[in-house]
Amino acid sequence: MTRFERVAVIGVGLIGGSFALALKAAGLAGRVAGAGRGAENLRIARERGAIDSIEPDAAAAVRGADLVLLATPVAQVPAVLAAIRDALAPGALVTDAGSTKRDVIAAARASLGGRIARFVPAHPIAGAEASGAAAASAELFRGRRVVLTPLEENSAADLERVAAAWRACGARVERMSAQEHDAVLAAVSHLPHLLAYALVHEIAGRPDAARLFGFAAGGFRDFTRIASSHPEMWRDICAANRDRLREELARYAAKLGEVERLLERGDAAGLERLFAEARAARGRWLEGGYG
Amino acid sequence: MTRFERVAVIGVGLIGGSFALALKAAGLAGRVAGAGRGAENLRIARERGAIDSIEPDAAAAVRGADLVLLATPVAQVPAVLAAIRDALAPGALVTDAGSTKRDVIAAARASLGGRIARFVPAHPIAGAEASGAAAASAELFRGRRVVLTPLEENSAADLERVAAAWRACGARVERMSAQEHDAVLAAVSHLPHLLAYALVHEIAGRPDAARLFGFAAGGFRDFTRIASSHPEMWRDICAANRDRLREELARYAAKLGEVERLLERGDAAGLERLFAEARAARGRWLEGGYG
Repeated sequence: MTRFERVAVIGVGLIGGSFALALKAAGLAGRVAGAGRGAENLRIARERGAIDSIEPDAAAAVRGADLVLLATPVAQVPAVLAAIRDALAPGALVTDAGSTKRDVIAAARASLGGRIARFVPAHPIAGAEASGAAAASAELFRGRRVVLTPLEENSAADLERVAAAWRACGARVERMSAQEHDAVLAAVSHLPHLLAYALVHEIAGRPDAARLFGFAAGGFRDFTRIASSHPEMWRDICAANRDRLREELARYAAKLGEVERLLERGDAAGLERLFAEARAARGRWLEGGYG
Repeated sequence: MTRFERVAVIGVGLIGGSFALALKAAGLAGRVAGAGRGAENLRIARERGAIDSIEPDAAAAVRGADLVLLATPVAQVPAVLAAIRDALAPGALVTDAGSTKRDVIAAARASLGGRIARFVPAHPIAGAEASGAAAASAELFRGRRVVLTPLEENSAADLERVAAAWRACGARVERMSAQEHDAVLAAVSHLPHLLAYALVHEIAGRPDAARLFGFAAGGFRDFTRIASSHPEMWRDICAANRDRLREELARYAAKLGEVERLLERGDAAGLERLFAEARAARGRWLEGGYG
């Protein structure tokens, strides 16, 4: 398996830090250089052994690297790519960990020009409401999926090198188009985040918020766990994928309209049927029956 | 503390079974008689020591009991009350565990007539997506809240006896009006359940449901955990509390409209502000900052 003698991680948070830790644990990374906005976060990343050096900027970090991971919030990707373009070593492979893929690919095409073939877009479907290098773990990707959304310019060998790196982190690697990726994730990840944020925000804005939160229990806690996610990261995801997300929101609003009509009519049998069908589908999902 | 020599539990599921186990563990229950619809479930409840006898019906179960707990789905309460009314011992105290209170109280007034003073309405805010006696636990109520919604006819002594029983199960007991209870729970419990059921149902109904579920991860799992809740129980709650629930659904739909306008305008700063405010409110709630 390819070992990467020099790895650069731009954005050493939960994802970037975990990738570095996991790659090192697998013995596939030599020296890891890190760059990012938060000096304290970078210090923690170095203390925890995720990175070996703190570089002053992204360009400095990628100099001489044979593998570069972009793990910033997605809206920063265009600026990072513009900054590193001229510093990349001729053989450098660049990949990313963005939760949206069409926008990242468009930015890479705009910045990398003739070197676009060496950019392999990827999205590890792993996260937590915790963020930052302090929350990073070599185990974060174990059993999780990583989606590669290959470009037609990518060589089979480069795709395999990136896939192998993620597999070494314990992930299951799959491939799909960037279009399909963004549509699928809008439905099962981006929309639920939006819905959870919206519920907490709605309740927090009321005069009797304290009273209401006082009686929120375990169901509410789990339902809203993802409303503790990183606001900037989710701002960027929602902005980058807003066409797909708006489609999902419209579908969901239509479903809520259906539920409202059942309530309005007092259709208890209809409500029970909807609940039972949802429960059965979720049970089937948990048992792997959809896979 | 009052010991109840003979306790009757009507509906020996997660809540009824856990109450019996906890009361016994605290040494406050003598013999517990159980009645319910599921013969197999009642056998499990007896095997697990939650009940000592399986009675053929609710009337048989309450004969001679000094404490009766109604723990069926709320829509069954009127029929159960009608069935037990003439079998209740003169000194029997009746309480319930219904997730809605106005409907249960109305049913109790209609059925118990002059004995309404001995009915103390209660709602333990504890649950799980698991249901049935097999999931019952003496620890279920530890640290959880139980809301009493006293009637003006209740004596202070009876309220205290019921409160003491729940405290013996490890619960924190609070009091509020039935009106306030139903409004508060609609916001922080009933609505989230409806939203989770709706999301799973929306996705499960699509031709590409398998593909979508295939990429659902931990955030989706937690967000939808309550969509594995008991359909009949939630049908009854939604039907009983539908006026308040429809108000909550309308508020939430308005909030989603606000989110949609942010997306439509591409207002990234507005989205980030909403996300950050929601995250901060949830953090404050988790830290007990809302009281």
